[in-house]
Amino acid sequence: MDPNAFRDTEDRISPLWLERLRAYLAAGRREDVTTVMEPLHAADVGDVLESLDPDERPALVRMLGDNFDYSALTEVDESVRVDILDALSNADIARGVSGLDNDDAVALLEDLEQEDRDEVLSKLPTFERLSLKRSLDFPEESAGRRMQTDFIAIPPFWTVGQTIDYLRTEPELPDEFYQIYVVDASYQVLGTIPLDKFLRSGRETSIEALMNTNLVLVDANEDQEEAARDFERYDLVEVGVVDESRRLVGVLTIDDIVDVIHEEADEDIKLLAGVGDEDISDTTVSTVRSRVPWLVVNLITAVLVSLVIGLFNATIEQMVALAVLMPIVASMGGNAGTQTMTVTVRALAMRELDGRRLRRLITREMVVGMVNGVIFAILIGLVTAARFGDIGLGVVIGLAMVINLIVAGTAGILIPLGLDKAKADPAIASAVFVTTITDVVGFFAFLGIAGLWFGLF
Amino acid sequence: MDPNAFRDTEDRISPLWLERLRAYLAAGRREDVTTVMEPLHAADVGDVLESLDPDERPALVRMLGDNFDYSALTEVDESVRVDILDALSNADIARGVSGLDNDDAVALLEDLEQEDRDEVLSKLPTFERLSLKRSLDFPEESAGRRMQTDFIAIPPFWTVGQTIDYLRTEPELPDEFYQIYVVDASYQVLGTIPLDKFLRSGRETSIEALMNTNLVLVDANEDQEEAARDFERYDLVEVGVVDESRRLVGVLTIDDIVDVIHEEADEDIKLLAGVGDEDISDTTVSTVRSRVPWLVVNLITAVLVSLVIGLFNATIEQMVALAVLMPIVASMGGNAGTQTMTVTVRALAMRELDGRRLRRLITREMVVGMVNGVIFAILIGLVTAARFGDIGLGVVIGLAMVINLIVAGTAGILIPLGLDKAKADPAIASAVFVTTITDVVGFFAFLGIAGLWFGLF
Repeated sequence: MDPNAFRDTEDRISPLWLERLRAYLAAGRREDVTTVMEPLHAADVGDVLESLDPDERPALVRMLGDNFDYSALTEVDESVRVDILDALSNADIARGVSGLDNDDAVALLEDLEQEDRDEVLSKLPTFERLSLKRSLDFPEESAGRRMQTDFIAIPPFWTVGQTIDYLRTEPELPDEFYQIYVVDASYQVLGTIPLDKFLRSGRETSIEALMNTNLVLVDANEDQEEAARDFERYDLVEVGVVDESRRLVGVLTIDDIVDVIHEEADEDIKLLAGVGDEDISDTTVSTVRSRVPWLVVNLITAVLVSLVIGLFNATIEQMVALAVLMPIVASMGGNAGTQTMTVTVRALAMRELDGRRLRRLITREMVVGMVNGVIFAILIGLVTAARFGDIGLGVVIGLAMVINLIVAGTAGILIPLGLDKAKADPAIASAVFVTTITDVVGFFAFLGIAGLWFGLF
Repeated sequence: MDPNAFRDTEDRISPLWLERLRAYLAAGRREDVTTVMEPLHAADVGDVLESLDPDERPALVRMLGDNFDYSALTEVDESVRVDILDALSNADIARGVSGLDNDDAVALLEDLEQEDRDEVLSKLPTFERLSLKRSLDFPEESAGRRMQTDFIAIPPFWTVGQTIDYLRTEPELPDEFYQIYVVDASYQVLGTIPLDKFLRSGRETSIEALMNTNLVLVDANEDQEEAARDFERYDLVEVGVVDESRRLVGVLTIDDIVDVIHEEADEDIKLLAGVGDEDISDTTVSTVRSRVPWLVVNLITAVLVSLVIGLFNATIEQMVALAVLMPIVASMGGNAGTQTMTVTVRALAMRELDGRRLRRLITREMVVGMVNGVIFAILIGLVTAARFGDIGLGVVIGLAMVINLIVAGTAGILIPLGLDKAKADPAIASAVFVTTITDVVGFFAFLGIAGLWFGLF
């Protein structure tokens, strides 16, 4: 393997490369640090920052000085970003931010304390300051926060030739753009033209004739997740963002949306597992703090479940085999419920559930619960009857299994739906509710039926 | 609300709209059907197909005839697509496929039986057939399967002006493109030029001077997930795909990649919940079939856990309170283990774990396990001591809790890592392993310590 390679064969940062950088850093060899960092893309610089020790991160930023591209800070976990920004002076941050695209600058400023944010803003040129302030006025996680405010807008009465001449001579253009906006004098969008259409049309073609008037626009106040759904649904690459009076104020590009899609899916996965907005770079303290609430909720439900078992104290005393078998019914219910719940949560997240599809899904899950209930009732019934030499015990656990798997399917679909109707995120609390229900029903059904069957009450 | 609106305020298909379409379909009113379907984007047509009953779907496709855009079939769940394709004649499919972009055509052909696929291919024009066959030769889920084979390649000795003239006169161009490839005579890529750079440069500028030689290319045999990671990391919009001899054979665009990112995240979520490659449109039978294996695995581990409890038969007989309390320790361990496991699985999926970050994560999770262990040992110890008026029982459950939460943290990180090292998908089986371990350890530790403490053995 190339000892100078930045990434190893597994696509991870090469340990050799990293140790060399750390040695340079420790020795204060500014030129060597600059030489090895220089060829890296901002995303790779972000990866390097995350791999370094916390105190090495701001040291690297300071040593690179003007060679450090602050957009790399938008590529790291939030906790890492906040730590680095804390360690840097506001003057340094202002210098770094002023070279950034509007959306990247907003991403950094968002994470500063109000006081620091104001100080950094005050050090920026007037135009930049106003444009950033305006973006920051939009709600968190809105399209307005994510948007890029540089875009190309032309009047409808131009021709392709005029536009190309304008693009060739205008020095202040966005870094990258995929379509051109046709606007009237008040910046109302009349149409859009993708770049490839431009290159294919003669110079004399009029803009008005060329433009696409079947517009997809995003409201700046709209949630970024809604905007992401539009991108996915209509295979967009760039979309215009408009304010309350429908004036074009910015554009969202697909690279920002890819990050949003990833974040939202990640959020769903983590919420389902009872992990908050947590990254692998978070400190031990903040990890404990984010997980304890979920475990407390689980403790409460576990105690509740144990109270249910406590009702059958006398029953268990007469037949200890029940204690040995009872976790099986509860555990199967928990699993079956989680399966249904996960499918429902994902379908809700992707807006796949309109009236007809919803009814079909509910019917299907009930039937699946029944079929699986019967399959596993027979299986566990046979195993139990054989193990304990007691057919009655096999029948009891089988009956409890059927009941619990039907309940699991029903709860797995109705709980996320109920949370969604109540405008709560169905991913957030479904798992706790579903497993609590399947535990309670599992233990209650098994111990209850056993008590009745064997006349133990 | 507008009764003619396609989507309701919740962004779902309006029930009114859908019922009208179904009435037209049932009455065979072809013109009305065409009129209401005509303004819809392919993605919306896909949504409509999923909402219809299974027998209405091919009826809609047939009624629309040449007005049906087959790319809508790439927007529906696989089971729906397979059903519709089954119901259509190969001649119809061939007609539909021949109007499609290469990548969409491949997506449809992939889902046909070998025999039907060969028949459809045989009905296509030679050039199209060869190009599709070539894409289908690449492995499933590879970049070669997803790529679009139409792209614009020019020689390095051209100028911007020559290129623009070529684009204006050449009738056979891809529908949408974001960059132009500079290739030598054997189609080796020399450089790329994004379209905006073209529009900003004078006609006399030479292509060689303009092109970006810092190339990111994807191997056609590479897994689509790898390609998606490149897109995300480097904020790409389009990337060239090359074959074994490094010749340009196609391009991947961001809209395909967005689908990949979504699918992969979805897959992780579902695997973690023990749901296979399952969609909400799947039939009851296929849903049962996909879930039973997971439940069987869970049944086996549940029986295993119950065998562990069975070891303590005599202990429980002497002190039924143990049976009442034992699920608490197991349940807390399962939750804490799932938290750690989920964070680890996601970090692995996003390649965030190189050597240093990995060691930090392991240390953190062990410490978090200990800290949470102590917190919840004290909580549950106090609750138990108060409820049963027995301080000893509180101490026993507290000790078991500490042990199980440390084990949970350790298992939650080591099991996904081990699966990853063994080249298995860490999402697929981690949950079962982790909860089995926390169940076994939870019951064993609690019942064992109790037996020793109270001298019940």
